[in-house]
Amino acid sequence: MRVISQVLRSLRNVKAIRSHSYACKETRLQLHSMLVGAGFGICISVTVAQMSAIDKRRKLNTSLYMAPPITNADHLLSTEDEMRTKMELLIMKIQADFCHVLEAEEYGGQKFKTDRWLRTEGGGGITCVLQDGEVFEKAGVNISVVTGHLPPDAVQQMRTRGKKLSEGKLPFFAAGVSAVIHPRNPMVPTIHFNYRYFEVENKDGSRQWWFGGGTDLTPYYLDEEDAIHFHKTLKDACDEHDILYYPKFKRWCDEYFRITHRNECRGIGGIFFDDLDSPSQEDAYKFISACAHAVIPSYLPLVRRHKNDDYGDRERQWQLLRRGRYVEFNLIYDRGTKFGLYTPGARYESILMSLPLTARWEYMHAPPKNSKEGKLIEVLQNPKNWVSLDPVSTS
Amino acid sequence: MRVISQVLRSLRNVKAIRSHSYACKETRLQLHSMLVGAGFGICISVTVAQMSAIDKRRKLNTSLYMAPPITNADHLLSTEDEMRTKMELLIMKIQADFCHVLEAEEYGGQKFKTDRWLRTEGGGGITCVLQDGEVFEKAGVNISVVTGHLPPDAVQQMRTRGKKLSEGKLPFFAAGVSAVIHPRNPMVPTIHFNYRYFEVENKDGSRQWWFGGGTDLTPYYLDEEDAIHFHKTLKDACDEHDILYYPKFKRWCDEYFRITHRNECRGIGGIFFDDLDSPSQEDAYKFISACAHAVIPSYLPLVRRHKNDDYGDRERQWQLLRRGRYVEFNLIYDRGTKFGLYTPGARYESILMSLPLTARWEYMHAPPKNSKEGKLIEVLQNPKNWVSLDPVSTS
Repeated sequence: MRVISQVLRSLRNVKAIRSHSYACKETRLQLHSMLVGAGFGICISVTVAQMSAIDKRRKLNTSLYMAPPITNADHLLSTEDEMRTKMELLIMKIQADFCHVLEAEEYGGQKFKTDRWLRTEGGGGITCVLQDGEVFEKAGVNISVVTGHLPPDAVQQMRTRGKKLSEGKLPFFAAGVSAVIHPRNPMVPTIHFNYRYFEVENKDGSRQWWFGGGTDLTPYYLDEEDAIHFHKTLKDACDEHDILYYPKFKRWCDEYFRITHRNECRGIGGIFFDDLDSPSQEDAYKFISACAHAVIPSYLPLVRRHKNDDYGDRERQWQLLRRGRYVEFNLIYDRGTKFGLYTPGARYESILMSLPLTARWEYMHAPPKNSKEGKLIEVLQNPKNWVSLDPVSTS
Repeated sequence: MRVISQVLRSLRNVKAIRSHSYACKETRLQLHSMLVGAGFGICISVTVAQMSAIDKRRKLNTSLYMAPPITNADHLLSTEDEMRTKMELLIMKIQADFCHVLEAEEYGGQKFKTDRWLRTEGGGGITCVLQDGEVFEKAGVNISVVTGHLPPDAVQQMRTRGKKLSEGKLPFFAAGVSAVIHPRNPMVPTIHFNYRYFEVENKDGSRQWWFGGGTDLTPYYLDEEDAIHFHKTLKDACDEHDILYYPKFKRWCDEYFRITHRNECRGIGGIFFDDLDSPSQEDAYKFISACAHAVIPSYLPLVRRHKNDDYGDRERQWQLLRRGRYVEFNLIYDRGTKFGLYTPGARYESILMSLPLTARWEYMHAPPKNSKEGKLIEVLQNPKNWVSLDPVSTS
């Protein structure tokens, strides 16, 4: 019976994994082997009736994730074709994959600290933070799955953005993953990404939905090879879905992550988009899933290439000054942070996990133009195209 | 002739000094001695006609200030009874007095770096920053004297605050002094103050004017004696003008300097007020002048008492975390910072000089309740009355 129960558990794993259309191949193969291994040497005879019974009792294998899902697991299993469920399972997987690869880069076995939290208004989140690591000074990876009612102001603001919504207070659902990684070595860039799904229910019961998100890089020193690799990886992910996406979303990113008062960008960009509701819900989901899965290949090689680079106090001080700029952007301009902090009952620790462990402000600091610091500033003031924006070109 | 010209120069000095109603007595006496000294042993015979000629050529003694005034000195002399002029001379004096007493606290002779800047839209400012001192890690003292036109949005916002203003774009004048001092020793609190005068011209030529300002303290460790001394000094300055001011402005300060998302105050308060336009322009000016002159006596004893206190890494780390909270308040909630940074052509270096040299953010940091750090948090969450709010009481 122990073997049979192992088989059943494995079947459940496969089911759970299958519910993400973008489960990484490696994990899928590993679980397939488990299933084969467990079934070895025993004759399995499962009738259709028995399968149905199994199906009713099947569970999500939450050990794959950083914590149990926010939504009840049985509810997720019974609604696996709904976008809300697909999105929740996707962001849980993205969170876990990313945390695990980052942990593997640490030398001292530093691990993410995981907090699962619930909102009284509905939903909750899972916040994972690795602080004071040898490689990562502060790394935060957060997911949230939130339900509630949008206040009339927020609805009005969405109507001005072109959403076809009734006036007044409307029920909403939002699910997203968001991460900011501040490495210790100033030669390793900071990365930020966020992918989210939003649903608002109209008074007539109809639903408006859209996706948003992006991935962007904030280096302290410019390494052109890194910049090209990063943008090329994002472009490849975009191009598979629509060759017009990368050029459009690259420009959007440069415009959005702008420290207006300093007339410079926060970093060297990436992609950013919002209000994506075409060509179909399934296609839009596949696109953001592809983007979210491109985070690791876009960033991990940069971490590996530079985490042992030499640096001194000059580089550390410059990194801290640039982190001060990061704080300025996040607290003054970032819509997500502002919206979050002004929401009553918001979990501010999860919103502010994006802030670096240490930041610095010097009055009138300006590096010489020809210095390596000055070269970064030049690119922040005049965003470059790191790969061709021409949809015809493949470079 | 050289002696006569010295006498004349001294007369000009006296005239300049007299134009501040609150010139400190010491400076006044010093200049009086200069005048007496210069006149010694020479028979002065000056006719009324000659006095008039002197009067036309008299100049402001700009050596008293950190830099030449923003407004043309001759214009200031010819308009000495106007509130704009009185205010500009007051803030220049407050800036210089404060910078000089802080410089005197440094052991290594560290001095303020002074930048005088002009705005293309009209007016300008004088920004003084002392960075990386032995006693003061970062100290910024700024004045600005600005003219221009308020955009219709700003006018509308003022109308909602009860200002009797015509609609549309209106000419304005604003003059203010603002300072934030971040000492190195965590036992010395951070102080902030700001005193300002605002004038808007209606379309019919009539003017609306008001004063605003405040002084508040942000300790890293609570010293009750310091807190009482600080509040008592502010209360005394208030009580001379209106015994209802201190209780009202103390509460206003606690409400304004609030980090809403953390449900705590930035510091232990002080006084804060805006839209002060009573009982008369002259009385309101005298009140804010008294408040501005109370800054040094409220703060300097605290610096002297604690600048050599022992501390270790624990206290330094806590100071940096609290500085992170200071940054949160200034960038997310402070109206002055937000208004400033969103104003096109604003001098952001002067606005952001309030940020500490270094700040820190740790995820989910919460000191034990009974620790000395926890005792500060207790007071930040539940603002205390450090002196009696009862107008009848003199304590």
